[in-house]
Amino acid sequence: MEIIVNPSPQQWKALCTRAVADDAVIEERVRAILSRVEAGGDAALADITREVEGRDLSPVAFREGQICEACPQQAEGVGNNPFLVSREQIAAASAQVDADLKEAIAQAAANIRAFHSAQMPQKVEVETTAGVRCVRRSRPIDRVGLYIPGGSAPLFSTLLMLAIPAKIAGCREIVLCTPAGRDGKIAPAVLYAADFCGVDTIYSLGGAQAIAAMAFGTETIAPVSKIFGPGNRYVTKAKQMVSARGVAIDMPAGPSEVMVMADDSADARFVASDLLSQAEHGGDSQAMLVCGSEAFAADVEAEVAHQLALLPRKDIAEKALENSRIVVFTAEPEAAVEGQVCEGEHRLHSKASRSKACPKQAEGTSPAIAFANAYAAEHLIISMRNPWDVAEQITAAGSVFIGNYSPESAGDYASGTNHTLPTMGLARAFSGIGLDSFMHSITYQELTREGLESLGDTIIKMAGAEGLDAHAAAVKIRLAK
Amino acid sequence: MEIIVNPSPQQWKALCTRAVADDAVIEERVRAILSRVEAGGDAALADITREVEGRDLSPVAFREGQICEACPQQAEGVGNNPFLVSREQIAAASAQVDADLKEAIAQAAANIRAFHSAQMPQKVEVETTAGVRCVRRSRPIDRVGLYIPGGSAPLFSTLLMLAIPAKIAGCREIVLCTPAGRDGKIAPAVLYAADFCGVDTIYSLGGAQAIAAMAFGTETIAPVSKIFGPGNRYVTKAKQMVSARGVAIDMPAGPSEVMVMADDSADARFVASDLLSQAEHGGDSQAMLVCGSEAFAADVEAEVAHQLALLPRKDIAEKALENSRIVVFTAEPEAAVEGQVCEGEHRLHSKASRSKACPKQAEGTSPAIAFANAYAAEHLIISMRNPWDVAEQITAAGSVFIGNYSPESAGDYASGTNHTLPTMGLARAFSGIGLDSFMHSITYQELTREGLESLGDTIIKMAGAEGLDAHAAAVKIRLAK
Repeated sequence: MEIIVNPSPQQWKALCTRAVADDAVIEERVRAILSRVEAGGDAALADITREVEGRDLSPVAFREGQICEACPQQAEGVGNNPFLVSREQIAAASAQVDADLKEAIAQAAANIRAFHSAQMPQKVEVETTAGVRCVRRSRPIDRVGLYIPGGSAPLFSTLLMLAIPAKIAGCREIVLCTPAGRDGKIAPAVLYAADFCGVDTIYSLGGAQAIAAMAFGTETIAPVSKIFGPGNRYVTKAKQMVSARGVAIDMPAGPSEVMVMADDSADARFVASDLLSQAEHGGDSQAMLVCGSEAFAADVEAEVAHQLALLPRKDIAEKALENSRIVVFTAEPEAAVEGQVCEGEHRLHSKASRSKACPKQAEGTSPAIAFANAYAAEHLIISMRNPWDVAEQITAAGSVFIGNYSPESAGDYASGTNHTLPTMGLARAFSGIGLDSFMHSITYQELTREGLESLGDTIIKMAGAEGLDAHAAAVKIRLAK
Repeated sequence: MEIIVNPSPQQWKALCTRAVADDAVIEERVRAILSRVEAGGDAALADITREVEGRDLSPVAFREGQICEACPQQAEGVGNNPFLVSREQIAAASAQVDADLKEAIAQAAANIRAFHSAQMPQKVEVETTAGVRCVRRSRPIDRVGLYIPGGSAPLFSTLLMLAIPAKIAGCREIVLCTPAGRDGKIAPAVLYAADFCGVDTIYSLGGAQAIAAMAFGTETIAPVSKIFGPGNRYVTKAKQMVSARGVAIDMPAGPSEVMVMADDSADARFVASDLLSQAEHGGDSQAMLVCGSEAFAADVEAEVAHQLALLPRKDIAEKALENSRIVVFTAEPEAAVEGQVCEGEHRLHSKASRSKACPKQAEGTSPAIAFANAYAAEHLIISMRNPWDVAEQITAAGSVFIGNYSPESAGDYASGTNHTLPTMGLARAFSGIGLDSFMHSITYQELTREGLESLGDTIIKMAGAEGLDAHAAAVKIRLAK
């Protein structure tokens, strides 16, 4: 890990940079896949799946066994859906999941359920003027689609993070797409977790084609209104491209990242283990440490080297550590110097706007906190003496881990918070997934005749000033009656 | 307006279609503008503004007067920002706004403030397991950018709808971009309203170049984390394109639309005035009426023709009415027929999934309500005998207007609800702007040693099943201490 000591504010922007891959080629490929699925429906899905995954989904193949005979679809003869995972397949998969893991999933699910159930938004109702009643209430999104990637270690934990709040929100149908291997099988833990959480419909579909199917629908797959979940760069690009077509998505996704803030109350071994938890996710992951002394930085670096050697995913973690940094701030907070340009993004220049742009610095916020806010980490671990005081000053982060006994892996799996979080600095404006991600708000207003009389002149005056006479007329015609 | 009587469910999808313009050419132009601003900063902004708007922003021109001498920027000599609107310009504009309009703005603002203040999200705090404390709280987005289009009738009302909640949320800096005319002037009502609502910084910048400036920043303009507001197709495309680069936007935008649901308690003249309020917005606007009798449809049609003739924006409204429809459902609700494929989007086929997909129809929900949900209107006016009963069954709409004395124009200006709403059917998953649009949520978790001990086995088991050993190690190393 690169160690940088007391970087100047001008260096901060570079230090906050994430590894971003160029994706022009991917965009072209994904565009082609989206077009094929939109035009060709189920047949295109089967063709693409055969080309990309090597799975044969010809009607004969799945009629003979992939879908069970007892399936209501077949019984009705409405048509075959070669991608639909049958109840029998789910039952068979569940039988393969060991009891310990089922128990772990149950404990994690209970915590996730408890925390997300508490997030149910309240109805807001205000009489803004006599006779003018305004209401805002949340409603579940009708049909949502979840995507879970396949591979050797499929992320059933992400399924808990998405399906549990979807169910609490009251979404009428929860669809899951997840790719099967060449043998046509989906990881048993994924099917078990999906069923456990109440997913309604499971399709063994992966990649950009799965996103296309959920966004546009096919003859046998109903389109969803919002798509959630992680994926490789094809999946991520496909989500971004369908979102430009009006299908909602959870959030733009980038590689995972952690920042650990540590003072001398932190344990270098714990900190190293947290940095490595992040680094093992993928070669493009980023682990950042912000601390107060070069000696501590050196301790952590030595611990990282020591623990790294023991990891099965050593090669991946090693690659991620190349993008990773230790930033040491030894200096005391400085008072903002008049005329100075502040860190990276605060490039306003008037005296008034400068002090407004950096009240924290003006008040003596530490450079470490200012830097953490500039970075806006997906996961922020605060291993410091007064962690809640620091957390109070954090304005941008996905999920914050307080103190020495709150490793990121606790939030990744079981504390109850959601692990689907904004990366790439998006935490400056985006939130992690919550119950509200599966709901949308509708506003209502009811005016009595008296209410409309109270507002009539205001509406007519404003509509007139905007040149919208019919808007004024809609009021006049009512009040004239 | 086209009248369709008892359309079959197969026809619904076509009836819910909005006018969408092809935008390949616009995309290319916007891409070029974004690249130029990102690479060229202020100089590129000045060049593009000169090319597109015909305004000259060379340093000499603005030094001599466009920016006042008292401006702190100039006083400090940090650099000139030719786009910054000075306090003097704002004061001069405010003096031109007549007192009646100021009073109207104050009344509207008070209602908007009352309704949005009531939306402050509550902190959620749950101890999910003994020693495991999870918290979710909302924080203001630090720096937000608002865009208000120019033109002959600039939408100062939209400024109220954006700046008031931004201020209540506590955003540290609220930036406004709005284009000036060739004379370098911005509509006085816009500057007055911006100042009245507490906008911090105003730039006289328009079009895709304004979106680029707020998204990427320039030498003199600080980037924002989220961009809000309406605009023409260039602005809309630019927002969509910067959102793919990680800048948050309020929502994808399309032409405005209304649906009126009416029974025999409705007044055909009121309904016609509401349809025309929508139609006068733009030639691509859409006005839909859903009613229960052909006679009422004919009455409304006659009233529309009558009232249309009196409108200054007759030509625009006439064009919008070409995209508009009256849908008459005379039939009683039918019980869902087994085996039948239900409306447009509900293409699931098993008995189980069909009844789940359309519980409303199964329960006897009227086709009119099912159709309204399929359309998912930006504005939905319910002029019916039991409007709240109908509203209760509406699962997708932006803002709902209850009863005969709640015209859309009340919500457009003054009732207190927000008028920045999802169009194009996006109301199936998106919400209109609310206080939450200017905030983001951060989650926190704090585990005691005992808390981590309770969850330890679960985390280790799940991490193991996902092949993430370092995640497990971060727990083990703590519990081993």
